[in-house]
Amino acid sequence: MTSPVGAEHLAFADRLADAAAAISRRYFRQRLAVDDKADASPVTIADREAEAAMRTLIESQYPKHGILGEEHGAVRAGADLVWVLDPIDGTKSFISGVPLFGTLIALVHEGRPVLGVIDQPVSRERWRGLEGQASTFNGAAATVRACDALAKATLFAGATEQYVGEDAAALARLKAAVKLTRHNGACYAYGLLALGFVDCVAEASLKPYDYCALVPIVEGAGGVITDWQGRPLGLHSDGHVLAAGDPRLHALAQATLAGRKPAR
Amino acid sequence: MTSPVGAEHLAFADRLADAAAAISRRYFRQRLAVDDKADASPVTIADREAEAAMRTLIESQYPKHGILGEEHGAVRAGADLVWVLDPIDGTKSFISGVPLFGTLIALVHEGRPVLGVIDQPVSRERWRGLEGQASTFNGAAATVRACDALAKATLFAGATEQYVGEDAAALARLKAAVKLTRHNGACYAYGLLALGFVDCVAEASLKPYDYCALVPIVEGAGGVITDWQGRPLGLHSDGHVLAAGDPRLHALAQATLAGRKPAR
Repeated sequence: MTSPVGAEHLAFADRLADAAAAISRRYFRQRLAVDDKADASPVTIADREAEAAMRTLIESQYPKHGILGEEHGAVRAGADLVWVLDPIDGTKSFISGVPLFGTLIALVHEGRPVLGVIDQPVSRERWRGLEGQASTFNGAAATVRACDALAKATLFAGATEQYVGEDAAALARLKAAVKLTRHNGACYAYGLLALGFVDCVAEASLKPYDYCALVPIVEGAGGVITDWQGRPLGLHSDGHVLAAGDPRLHALAQATLAGRKPAR
Repeated sequence: MTSPVGAEHLAFADRLADAAAAISRRYFRQRLAVDDKADASPVTIADREAEAAMRTLIESQYPKHGILGEEHGAVRAGADLVWVLDPIDGTKSFISGVPLFGTLIALVHEGRPVLGVIDQPVSRERWRGLEGQASTFNGAAATVRACDALAKATLFAGATEQYVGEDAAALARLKAAVKLTRHNGACYAYGLLALGFVDCVAEASLKPYDYCALVPIVEGAGGVITDWQGRPLGLHSDGHVLAAGDPRLHALAQATLAGRKPAR
């Protein structure tokens, strides 16, 4: 499959990230009111303003494109091209003063994520991915590392409350198999995987705006990212994400999460 | 009690932090060999070189002072003044490319930590504490925030494997009582507590070089830091650390960890 998405859209995604970054940097480590959303997750004025700024730019530049954002919902969701936005992925980090949150920007073509940006505005780190191209980190090539065995692998997982019921048992199996686990999830973990410092990330209970931007970045760095059954991720996935830098490790992790004995 | 430690020693601690930072910055996000120590914790050439550089400076400036370092052991441990060094606290973050590790430098007088520095060399963030003085963050005053109830509190905890047996049950009680928990331990958590973005940190299985530097910083920012029984921390504490920005919250957290009903 080919998509009409290219360098023009990637340059525009940079503009979106710049606009969001200016806002989240201004509010970082300020005393902000934190509101609880319906799902009890926190949100601040920084999340709302950063998404609104990006939506304004999209409406002006691409008025026929759809938009799906974490804070302000969906418009033209049936369009061929939909921008999927998380202004501050890792709001719990943001409100705690931890500079590991990120702005996530994806462009989805007919349900498939084909462009992704992860931007960390405080450390000024930016990952960019475009289907069929090598991913970049601050302009240089981003590349995964090889890791062919769970016993050698560094696993990053999300907050423990993401994993409910059977998902908790599945994650426990994977943690028991790897060398090192850290509960540092959200977008930064996938960025480190794309740089070859983390081997595997397994998360649950995610929404499309949490993972769509990650797909082109991880794939363009040589990694594999799917749901826990190995299916491609799209707007209608079930919220489970499994990424690995090495395709062999992805297969082993998938089998371990499923409770199957790996083939080797 | 008063100590002979003052501005001269704090300026010298800055020199130590500068020397360690130059080394750990050089090695950050490079492909380093990672060795497993006897306790299975990871160590790299960056840890070893950074501590050696600090020890050389101490031997030259204060040849009668003791030194206790994570990587190279103890000399003159019976001296009135002992420098306690962790060149890279959070080595698991360091080797994974996460810029939340830190260099910890403490000066301990007759067993009591009276000077502390936390230095994050990548983001160039530095916390300084000196007994009897207000703590600073990059030169500005660092101050905790008020939080008088566990139900409003943000708790940072260490890696899940720190908490064994009864400690795991105790942490589970505390996590159930607070508003938000993140497993982002190590020194950065205490730095954020001293800045008023985290309310409570509870860790177990720590060594003196993991916590001595934190004591003057947290206390000089208006917080309370003790072991889980409320006793002052020193070289011979039992490895449990409980810090809170608000003394009322410290008392509530201590009671919850102990399984006692808080007084209020």
